[in-house]
Amino acid sequence: MKNSITELFNIQYPIIQGGMVWVSGWKLASAVSNAGGLGLIGAGSMHPSTLQEHIKKCKNATNKPFGVNVPLLYPEIDKIMQIIVDEGIKIVFTSAGNPNTWTSFLKKKSITVVHVVSSVKFALKAEKAGVDAIVCEGFEAGGHNGREETTTFTLIPMVKKEVKIPVIAAGGVASGKAMLAAMVLGAEGVQIGSLFAATIESSAHQNFKDSIIAVKEGDTKLTLKELAPVRLIKNSFYNQIEQLYQNNTSKQELKNLLGKGRAKKGIFEGDIENGELEIGQIAGVIDKILPVKAVFKEIIDEFNTVKAFVYRL
Amino acid sequence: MKNSITELFNIQYPIIQGGMVWVSGWKLASAVSNAGGLGLIGAGSMHPSTLQEHIKKCKNATNKPFGVNVPLLYPEIDKIMQIIVDEGIKIVFTSAGNPNTWTSFLKKKSITVVHVVSSVKFALKAEKAGVDAIVCEGFEAGGHNGREETTTFTLIPMVKKEVKIPVIAAGGVASGKAMLAAMVLGAEGVQIGSLFAATIESSAHQNFKDSIIAVKEGDTKLTLKELAPVRLIKNSFYNQIEQLYQNNTSKQELKNLLGKGRAKKGIFEGDIENGELEIGQIAGVIDKILPVKAVFKEIIDEFNTVKAFVYRL
Repeated sequence: MKNSITELFNIQYPIIQGGMVWVSGWKLASAVSNAGGLGLIGAGSMHPSTLQEHIKKCKNATNKPFGVNVPLLYPEIDKIMQIIVDEGIKIVFTSAGNPNTWTSFLKKKSITVVHVVSSVKFALKAEKAGVDAIVCEGFEAGGHNGREETTTFTLIPMVKKEVKIPVIAAGGVASGKAMLAAMVLGAEGVQIGSLFAATIESSAHQNFKDSIIAVKEGDTKLTLKELAPVRLIKNSFYNQIEQLYQNNTSKQELKNLLGKGRAKKGIFEGDIENGELEIGQIAGVIDKILPVKAVFKEIIDEFNTVKAFVYRL
Repeated sequence: MKNSITELFNIQYPIIQGGMVWVSGWKLASAVSNAGGLGLIGAGSMHPSTLQEHIKKCKNATNKPFGVNVPLLYPEIDKIMQIIVDEGIKIVFTSAGNPNTWTSFLKKKSITVVHVVSSVKFALKAEKAGVDAIVCEGFEAGGHNGREETTTFTLIPMVKKEVKIPVIAAGGVASGKAMLAAMVLGAEGVQIGSLFAATIESSAHQNFKDSIIAVKEGDTKLTLKELAPVRLIKNSFYNQIEQLYQNNTSKQELKNLLGKGRAKKGIFEGDIENGELEIGQIAGVIDKILPVKAVFKEIIDEFNTVKAFVYRL
């Protein structure tokens, strides 16, 4: 399987692991890279020194390419970028911010830059900023999400009509079938979040992994749109948000309820009732916790089976 | 192209035209059936006598199979069902209501019944009610839509895991690529709405067709969730809804603003500013108004081109 994405990152399969907060440490990233995909360390939930430690451990755990995901609104963004350069990181995925701010800095250091977008408008902006590829993330994706609410099925073809750089599909991809479907729609690769959050190597709490397995269709919802839209499992915390909405809440009340550290509480500390449980709609098909290597085998086997089905159409 | 859906309806391609209000009269339905798909007359916007007239005209215009789409909450539903039986209609798509109410009545008259669902829960309910197939409609679809907000990309695999009857994918399908992607995800057929709404044979007003062509990514939104969720083009009417939301509106105020006949006003009478313009997200890729026959040629040609691309993966 060779295409623009496998060549861009020098990887075996065009499968990228989402750089999720509290989930994507060196263990997950190195396991994904060792399995032939692209592992990403999620800097969003790490202090700069923690990120540096994870990068060093990841280097020891794999000799394959891996990268770092950096939300551009990160408070100590300068320190994070300096560590990335100092540690010789060659691939950076940026998200949640303006791609103009850091792309040229990173490109000057010969770093491959990919930006995550949720709309055609931001896809064009990222391309103009000089990124090497874009992740197009649909409405069904877990965690923070775009305001246009455009789904993977419609976002990929609409972006492909407008941009020339390679497109990686995210949101709803958790199988070989979905990977092939995304490529049929025009994507050159896929970014997988929820499925990797539920692996053995994910640094999420066991309670959170068990919650992913328990999710059925309809159990997640995009909410808190007045702050920043985020897709969550419907737990007690979610019900409290809904209660506020029913009483004509204000932005400030929502902020107060959210408070600080809700995602850590739910995903990392395993407080399933009071935490912010960020996961995608496709969690409804995830029914077991496997090691990353086994996940890759299932995806690739299914991808090939469905390819054979297409031959017979 | 032979599969469970082409056999169920005795059609050439597993392409079904959505039975849309104010759009899907005998002209559109017969054109789709003559092109090798399944045309549906949309009863939702017709008085019983109008429906009967459209059925008679459709019979004169095609000797291929066609059907009728019936929203089950229709006020004169008994009259509609009697006309369907009297006119010897062999295929009925039901939507917006409980599949238990009419399925066995229709099945006893040897009518093939398909029910439209937007969640796994309703898919299972429809299967239990004895329907022959289900349409699974994702969040990106135009017009009325499910409360779970599950997207086509995730709904299809989640439903396929649970039901045995054939699945038709709807929401976001407007090309041969999307058709193949839906089949890769597990659908046996596709239902296409927005693209057929913009054809020459659609009974929509020219202004509405021009609006579909003008839609870009991000120009539609699912709204009026307190009444019945509906996806609309963001026009003046939509902006008035948003204004009410920003002032902590009530359900009654929304009802008052909506009033009666907004969809007719926009879609059929061409009042683009004050009408309810029901269209799907994928309108962003639709850029010309073609006859149905040309639309079929484009879909099938692209479907085969993308199949050939998959062979090379």
